[in-house]
Amino acid sequence: MMYNIAILGASGYTGAELIRLISGHSSMQIKALGANSKAGQTMAEVFPHLRHMDLPALVKIEEIDFTEIDLCFCALPHKTSQEVIAALPKDLKIVDLSADFRLRDPQEYTKWYGNPHAALEQQKEAVYGLTEFYRKEISEARLVAGTGCNAATGQFALRPLIEKGVIDLDDIILDLKCAVSGAGRSLKENLLHAELSEGYHAYSVGGTHRHLGEFDQEFSAIAGRPVKVQFTPHLIPANRGILATVYVKGDAQVIHDTFSAAYANEPFIQVLPMGEAPSTRHIRGSNFCHIGVVADRIEGRTIVVVALDNLTKGSSGQALQNANLMLGIEETEGLMMAPLFP
Amino acid sequence: MMYNIAILGASGYTGAELIRLISGHSSMQIKALGANSKAGQTMAEVFPHLRHMDLPALVKIEEIDFTEIDLCFCALPHKTSQEVIAALPKDLKIVDLSADFRLRDPQEYTKWYGNPHAALEQQKEAVYGLTEFYRKEISEARLVAGTGCNAATGQFALRPLIEKGVIDLDDIILDLKCAVSGAGRSLKENLLHAELSEGYHAYSVGGTHRHLGEFDQEFSAIAGRPVKVQFTPHLIPANRGILATVYVKGDAQVIHDTFSAAYANEPFIQVLPMGEAPSTRHIRGSNFCHIGVVADRIEGRTIVVVALDNLTKGSSGQALQNANLMLGIEETEGLMMAPLFP
Amino acid sequence: MMYNIAILGASGYTGAELIRLISGHSSMQIKALGANSKAGQTMAEVFPHLRHMDLPALVKIEEIDFTEIDLCFCALPHKTSQEVIAALPKDLKIVDLSADFRLRDPQEYTKWYGNPHAALEQQKEAVYGLTEFYRKEISEARLVAGTGCNAATGQFALRPLIEKGVIDLDDIILDLKCAVSGAGRSLKENLLHAELSEGYHAYSVGGTHRHLGEFDQEFSAIAGRPVKVQFTPHLIPANRGILATVYVKGDAQVIHDTFSAAYANEPFIQVLPMGEAPSTRHIRGSNFCHIGVVADRIEGRTIVVVALDNLTKGSSGQALQNANLMLGIEETEGLMMAPLFP
Amino acid sequence: MMYNIAILGASGYTGAELIRLISGHSSMQIKALGANSKAGQTMAEVFPHLRHMDLPALVKIEEIDFTEIDLCFCALPHKTSQEVIAALPKDLKIVDLSADFRLRDPQEYTKWYGNPHAALEQQKEAVYGLTEFYRKEISEARLVAGTGCNAATGQFALRPLIEKGVIDLDDIILDLKCAVSGAGRSLKENLLHAELSEGYHAYSVGGTHRHLGEFDQEFSAIAGRPVKVQFTPHLIPANRGILATVYVKGDAQVIHDTFSAAYANEPFIQVLPMGEAPSTRHIRGSNFCHIGVVADRIEGRTIVVVALDNLTKGSSGQALQNANLMLGIEETEGLMMAPLFP
Repeated sequence: MMYNIAILGASGYTGAELIRLISGHSSMQIKALGANSKAGQTMAEVFPHLRHMDLPALVKIEEIDFTEIDLCFCALPHKTSQEVIAALPKDLKIVDLSADFRLRDPQEYTKWYGNPHAALEQQKEAVYGLTEFYRKEISEARLVAGTGCNAATGQFALRPLIEKGVIDLDDIILDLKCAVSGAGRSLKENLLHAELSEGYHAYSVGGTHRHLGEFDQEFSAIAGRPVKVQFTPHLIPANRGILATVYVKGDAQVIHDTFSAAYANEPFIQVLPMGEAPSTRHIRGSNFCHIGVVADRIEGRTIVVVALDNLTKGSSGQALQNANLMLGIEETEGLMMAPLFP
Repeated sequence: MMYNIAILGASGYTGAELIRLISGHSSMQIKALGANSKAGQTMAEVFPHLRHMDLPALVKIEEIDFTEIDLCFCALPHKTSQEVIAALPKDLKIVDLSADFRLRDPQEYTKWYGNPHAALEQQKEAVYGLTEFYRKEISEARLVAGTGCNAATGQFALRPLIEKGVIDLDDIILDLKCAVSGAGRSLKENLLHAELSEGYHAYSVGGTHRHLGEFDQEFSAIAGRPVKVQFTPHLIPANRGILATVYVKGDAQVIHDTFSAAYANEPFIQVLPMGEAPSTRHIRGSNFCHIGVVADRIEGRTIVVVALDNLTKGSSGQALQNANLMLGIEETEGLMMAPLFP
Repeated sequence: MMYNIAILGASGYTGAELIRLISGHSSMQIKALGANSKAGQTMAEVFPHLRHMDLPALVKIEEIDFTEIDLCFCALPHKTSQEVIAALPKDLKIVDLSADFRLRDPQEYTKWYGNPHAALEQQKEAVYGLTEFYRKEISEARLVAGTGCNAATGQFALRPLIEKGVIDLDDIILDLKCAVSGAGRSLKENLLHAELSEGYHAYSVGGTHRHLGEFDQEFSAIAGRPVKVQFTPHLIPANRGILATVYVKGDAQVIHDTFSAAYANEPFIQVLPMGEAPSTRHIRGSNFCHIGVVADRIEGRTIVVVALDNLTKGSSGQALQNANLMLGIEETEGLMMAPLFP
Repeated sequence: MMYNIAILGASGYTGAELIRLISGHSSMQIKALGANSKAGQTMAEVFPHLRHMDLPALVKIEEIDFTEIDLCFCALPHKTSQEVIAALPKDLKIVDLSADFRLRDPQEYTKWYGNPHAALEQQKEAVYGLTEFYRKEISEARLVAGTGCNAATGQFALRPLIEKGVIDLDDIILDLKCAVSGAGRSLKENLLHAELSEGYHAYSVGGTHRHLGEFDQEFSAIAGRPVKVQFTPHLIPANRGILATVYVKGDAQVIHDTFSAAYANEPFIQVLPMGEAPSTRHIRGSNFCHIGVVADRIEGRTIVVVALDNLTKGSSGQALQNANLMLGIEETEGLMMAPLFP
């Protein structure tokens, strides 16, 4: 069976990444590409790297006939996404890549994003899209909210540990190093090659990054009590990759065992041998996530290091993984390509 | 049907790239991986980015049972390659990625590479592996010699023009900009990040680069008279990509028409609209080659710009394309993945 | 003696570079910094790397009291520059870094820049600022027009050769590789780290780059007949540097001798030993220019390779060198710092 | 007065950086350059970026006449350094940049570096070279041991806080991001551009990095009790820079006040306004160190971020600062150049 796919917001990085992934998928075909500001252009103009593909031209979203669409990826900016999704057919399967449906509590949404939510109905039915932990709900969902890429990385490091109660919940530090494609195609001085390539730095320091809303929601739910982590992201002169160095209080061997058990059957999560730490060079362009565990010299302290590709496992790859589940396709379909190295 | 593949020299970049490509191939399986210096190690140790794959461990070449191998990729250094291939079974299909069998004239080989050839028998039967121009010979060959990555790039720019006689044969300049993975995994000061990342430069200036041997052989054969080009490669702080800026004397529209005709049915060669020039960002990690043609302000002069990925279309992708032909598989199998952007 | 300096357009890269250089100058002090859009801000806000300096805050240009200024650097965008300079005091010494006063013929200006010139009076008195070749005129000038950074690079490679008649004037190719700071702080997609860092490409292909106006003017004047060169710039993923690979027809030894004689007493121009080619890593952050000469394998053809830092020798360093001459200061003052390597 | 300087180990990055800095120093001249493996070569061959300077050729250390040397910088690898220094004249002023004389306790040295110390006499008289905290001792010292670059960075963040008792001593985490020149010119696969440029990673995870020896020694001495920090360095695809993100328990305002007081008169330490975090792009190539303080959303927790250039303030700049003190020269001489940006 061949499913018809629409992608809204096809002119951004996550849109392009979805097309790349779907180009290798055996049972999806791209039927419509929406991108209001660039409507009328061909994909070869917007993304010359896709010029070999036979893709529909970009159209305005209202021009798309959704009755022939089996599943719609929504790769629009947050706030726009909720408005667009509120107006889409109520029975259309949707994977949203924006931040709009990640937080279940509308007040939390407003706290972190500043505006009242404009699609409260849809928000209620949305399922949080961290595949490995919401597999069943996702397979039955109509609307899945893709997670933040940093939020996914941090949760791969911490969910099993919180659930099994093997770390101190009040002393968790996530120091993240994010590659620049995570900032999207926005035109900002600090994203210019001349400024970034020899200039790395922390941003949103002090607990102000919006992905903390997801950490708070998810970790507190698992623990059954409020859990607040410290989280400092850094912008690194590389294109793809997130490396999270997570400092926890707990026994390294117990932590390694916990990961080994939790991820034993996961096709995309690779737990490295005890004592090894991953590198972003080994997951680039792939849907794989590498997790390392190292004991600190101070007894009872452990460092967990997680690496994944922000655009693939952190965003568009996760979205496709979820779409596979929603359509009853093999979960790994279109996602097993090896990383690009070097 | 599933073909059994061996890769010799599996611990280098082209070896790793072959494994990446074959991991997405529907009718090849990797049966043996040879790498003498790292024999005994697992691929997860040598290339952690392949740890999710179920690959055989590295062994010494003499430990491989070639009777169960349908085709062998030889990704060894030049000179080693000819010695190894001379000792392999005489009926084994081989795609060699080294420089050892590219030059038909043993004296030319010695001139460019310094040593006498040690496998003259095999050299005689070797077919030059530029797929788009030797398709029939390759499909019938036992031993195919993969081209140099720079040599492939230059030939995509010039073969149709020389063949159709639309440019001046005595005034051809190839200014190439090569990414650093083309230099392999060799440990040299000028390949260190600290030195290269803000330090690009020309090398082998003045017509001393070995790939000129291929240009001379091929262009002279097409023209039916000696053709010598000027060729200056430059090392650029990027990982993958070759960009060739080729200066010719000839009419731009005629040149564009010539390319359009020559490459009309080629699955991997994309001729851009007249006046557009390609970028390495649009072919990275793929087997595609983009060709642009621009008229200079001086009448009768034209600039041809070609972009391809040195490790894929310039080396391992080409090798797989040839192997497909040799085994009677669809030529594009395993090679249609979209480029990685950004 | 201490000279009072004003810099207009102090919030761009060339403005920042001027301040860096003047911070090590023994007889200049910065008295006023103009930057209309950021007026009111401190330099520590605009350029945190200068926060240790005791600099005046940014003001609107009309707020500056030019009667206390000995020399004014104008680092404004072209077109703005001519309007501002037309309104400045008629006896103020000015070094302009924009393109506005480089071309002597107003029609040539309009041809390359699109608009009629708005400061024809000043254009007449402007001296072309390529120090090594206009030293006397610059030392007597009131208004000096800094050259284009690419234009400077190409002229260092070609002026002595054209003047001495040692190359064919009708077959000159300049293939330039420019680092990204040359594009300034403009917010464009192709300058984003995510797009440039693994994506190099040619631009303004075919003889459309504006610096050709300078080449045409200068080379034709030296030769006493029209000279048109081919010139293709490429954008390279590095911050600072221009590498020009220049293909000429002429004898390599004669060319090397010509350079050695022409630049024998130049403090900033280093002619490398015959056969060596320079690298951008060896001139970064400095006012030095390295020139290499290599004979091609084809008799009578020579490759000249020039490397300099676009922001220093190509722009702000040149401007300071000229200012020194205009104020009667030692020409090398503030400019002898060693390159930053690695 | 002009002092005669010798540099041993002049062919490495820190040696080159020393020459760069001394080239702008008003009262030092380089009299001898030692580098055993490259003895006989000129500096223009070893470091073409210094070809404009009139430098002595490289010689073997035993060929140097130390009677005419006022101060010797020793930029040799550790272990070699102690052997060489043991054999130098006993009254020669020396600034050592290696790790050999940083640890006062010979057993601690052996624990971290593996070998017994071979210059115990000299070790006893060595003064730890963190200028801002050992100024008086350094000015009277004969032998000064330059600190580790990471060790310097961490101490700028923590010494005033430990001394004033404003943070919890048992919960200190240093997450460092180091640029690659810190690894020196060593030829290792993970330092190749092809591997590092899109591949950042943690190393020496778990408290095994040798600079912990310095942290333990210094912090415990200040606190008057054992202090052990957690320290994870990461290798980042940039050439110069260290960014330390330090997680402490203490009040942000108190911490900011503590820094402001401690560094009020320091010429090279810049405390940013409360809430701001530094970037490596703003200190590159300079001797400045930027310190930012941000309160976490969790009460009582603070993030301190420190940025400096590993080759300048972290190594050769610090060495020159110490040499100035030892020779009675103004401490900032030759070190006030502005950072290179972009």
